[in-house]
Amino acid sequence: MGKSDSEKPVVGVDLGGTKVLAGVVAPNGQILATVKRATKPEGGPAVVVERVLKSVREAVKAAGLEPDDILALGSGAPGPLDPDSGVVLHTPNMPGWDNVPLAKMLGDALNVPAFIANDVDLGTLGEFALGAGQGHQHVVGIFVGTGIGGGLILNGELWQGWRRAAAEIGHTIVLADGPYCGCGNRGCLEAVASRTAIERDIQAGIKAGRESVIPELLKADDKGRLTSGALVEALRRGDTLVAEVLGRVQFYLGLGIASAVNFVDPEMVILGGGVVEAFGDEFLEPIRRVAYQNFINKRGARDVKIVPASLGDNAALLGAAVYARQRLERIRK
Amino acid sequence: MGKSDSEKPVVGVDLGGTKVLAGVVAPNGQILATVKRATKPEGGPAVVVERVLKSVREAVKAAGLEPDDILALGSGAPGPLDPDSGVVLHTPNMPGWDNVPLAKMLGDALNVPAFIANDVDLGTLGEFALGAGQGHQHVVGIFVGTGIGGGLILNGELWQGWRRAAAEIGHTIVLADGPYCGCGNRGCLEAVASRTAIERDIQAGIKAGRESVIPELLKADDKGRLTSGALVEALRRGDTLVAEVLGRVQFYLGLGIASAVNFVDPEMVILGGGVVEAFGDEFLEPIRRVAYQNFINKRGARDVKIVPASLGDNAALLGAAVYARQRLERIRK
Repeated sequence: MGKSDSEKPVVGVDLGGTKVLAGVVAPNGQILATVKRATKPEGGPAVVVERVLKSVREAVKAAGLEPDDILALGSGAPGPLDPDSGVVLHTPNMPGWDNVPLAKMLGDALNVPAFIANDVDLGTLGEFALGAGQGHQHVVGIFVGTGIGGGLILNGELWQGWRRAAAEIGHTIVLADGPYCGCGNRGCLEAVASRTAIERDIQAGIKAGRESVIPELLKADDKGRLTSGALVEALRRGDTLVAEVLGRVQFYLGLGIASAVNFVDPEMVILGGGVVEAFGDEFLEPIRRVAYQNFINKRGARDVKIVPASLGDNAALLGAAVYARQRLERIRK
Repeated sequence: MGKSDSEKPVVGVDLGGTKVLAGVVAPNGQILATVKRATKPEGGPAVVVERVLKSVREAVKAAGLEPDDILALGSGAPGPLDPDSGVVLHTPNMPGWDNVPLAKMLGDALNVPAFIANDVDLGTLGEFALGAGQGHQHVVGIFVGTGIGGGLILNGELWQGWRRAAAEIGHTIVLADGPYCGCGNRGCLEAVASRTAIERDIQAGIKAGRESVIPELLKADDKGRLTSGALVEALRRGDTLVAEVLGRVQFYLGLGIASAVNFVDPEMVILGGGVVEAFGDEFLEPIRRVAYQNFINKRGARDVKIVPASLGDNAALLGAAVYARQRLERIRK
C-alpha cells in the first residue's frame, strides 16, 4: 500500500552561483540525505540543471528511496525570478540565465511537481518553520554575506510581495548619499554592512596607512580573499582597524533592523549568513543595543527577539522543502 | 421594519491634539454629515471625550438620524494605543492620556460598539477603501506633516503588526548619524523630511546668512509659524533657500519610499499630509524619480504607483468608519 502525501518526503534544493545543495526532507523536517557539488555556472543553464538533477537523484538514492517516493521538489535560486510561473528571469552571477523555466525543467525530468522561489526567502522560511523562528508567526530574516538578503514571514506565511520582489532588506537605504552599492544606488544597507563593504573599508584603511594584520593574513590565504575566518583571526589578535570597521557594520545592521521593525512590527528578527555565523552570538549584542534604541515604539520592544539563525547552510534547502509542500497543498485544495 | 446592519451608517471620528472631526458615513462611503470642533486637550480626557460625544451627537442629528440608527463607531487617536482593547496608552501631545479606555467610554455613552486605531493607520485605510487606493490590495500610506506617519495595507487588510506598532515609516532611518528626530533617535525620515525638519533647515540657512523671503512672510503671519502656505508663496517668489530645502525633502521622501517598496513590495504608495497637499501633484515628480531609481527590482517598477492622497482631511474619519464596520463584521462572524 502506498504512503499518503503527508507521509512522503520532499526534495529541497539550494542552487547558488558556486554550489548546488540537494537534500531529501521528511515531513517532520528531518534531513534524510544531502548531496553537494559545485554549480559550474560557466556551462550555462542546461549543464547546471543536469548537475542539480544528478545531485537530487544521488540524494534520493542515499536516503534509500526511489524517485517515485518523492512528493515534490522545491528549489531556491538567486535573483530575479517568478515563483508563480517557475521561471528564472535573470541571474547576474550565472551566464545565460535569462527566462529559464527552471521549475518545469526540474519537474519534467523528475516527474514531480516542482516549485522555485528566491533563495533568501526560502532561507527565512526554513528558519521560520524548522529553525530559530519555530513557534513564531511574524519573522524578518536578514542574511549577511557578500551581499545582504532578506525574507519576511507574516501570519505564518512567506510574504513575497505584489511583484514577488519583497524583503530586499539589503536595499533599505540607511545612509543617504553613502557609498555606492553593487545595485547602482547609494547608501543601501548592503553597501555599508556586507562582507563586500567590510573588505572595501578595511582595504581603504590599510591604503590610508592604518596598521592591520589583514595583509599578512591575506598572504597566508592562497586565494587572497578576505574570508570571515580572517576577520575573526584579526579580531582575536586585537586588530583595531578590523574592530572599528566591524563596529560600524554592527551599528548599520542595528539601524536596518530597527527600520524593518518600525515598519512591519514582527515578533522576531533572525540574523544569519556567513559574516554573522563566523563571529558567533556575541556579535549580535551591539546590534541588538542599536536596534532596540531605534525602535520607535518602546512598548514590548524587548519582546521582539533578535536571534541568530540556527540552520546554517541547510536553511534554504529546508525552506525549499517546506515551500514545495505548501505550494502543493495550496494547489490541491 | 428596521434596517439590516449592512444598510446602517457608521460614525467615524478623527481625534487629534488640535481638532475633533466626527462624521456619519453611509455604507457606500458617502459622508452624510460632519461636525468639527477644537479638541481643547488641556481639559484632560474626560473633557475631550465629552467634546467628541457632543460632536458625534450633532453629526448624527445633522444627518437627520437618531442615535439608534448608528451601527458602530470608529475613532482614530494619536498613538500609542491598543486597538484590540480600545485603550489609549499614552498621548504625548494631550495631557493626562495614560491608559484611557477610549473605545469603552465612547461606546458606553452612545450605546454602540466602538473601536479605536492609530489615526495614520486609519487615514491609510480610508484612502485604500474610498480614496486614491481604491481597487488595489497592497498599499503603503505616507503622511507628511509636523511629523511623518505611515500605514500599511496587505491583502486588502490593515497590517497593524505584532505589537500593533507597525507602519512607522517616519522612523525608517535614512541618514545614519543624521539630525536628531523628535523620537530621540537620529536620521529618521521624519528628522529630514517633515515640516519640522523643513523649518529647522530654513531657519539654519537664514541664520547662516542665506537670503530668503521667509522672515518677511513670517512677520505677515500673526502666528509666526512657518505654514505650508508660506512655503508655497516663497517658492512662487523664487526663494532659492526654500527650493533647496524642499529639494532635499523630496530626495529623502524618495529614498524612504524606495526602502518601503524594497521591503514589502506593494502595488501603490499614497503620499498625503499637509506638506504634500500644499504643493500639489507636481511636488511628487522629483520624489517619484528618486524612488523608482532606488527600487532594487526594476521589473514592473513603474507599475508600482506613487500617487497623491485624495481624501484630504476626511481620510482618517472615513478610515475610522471603514475600520469600525470591519471590526464589527469580524466579531459577528
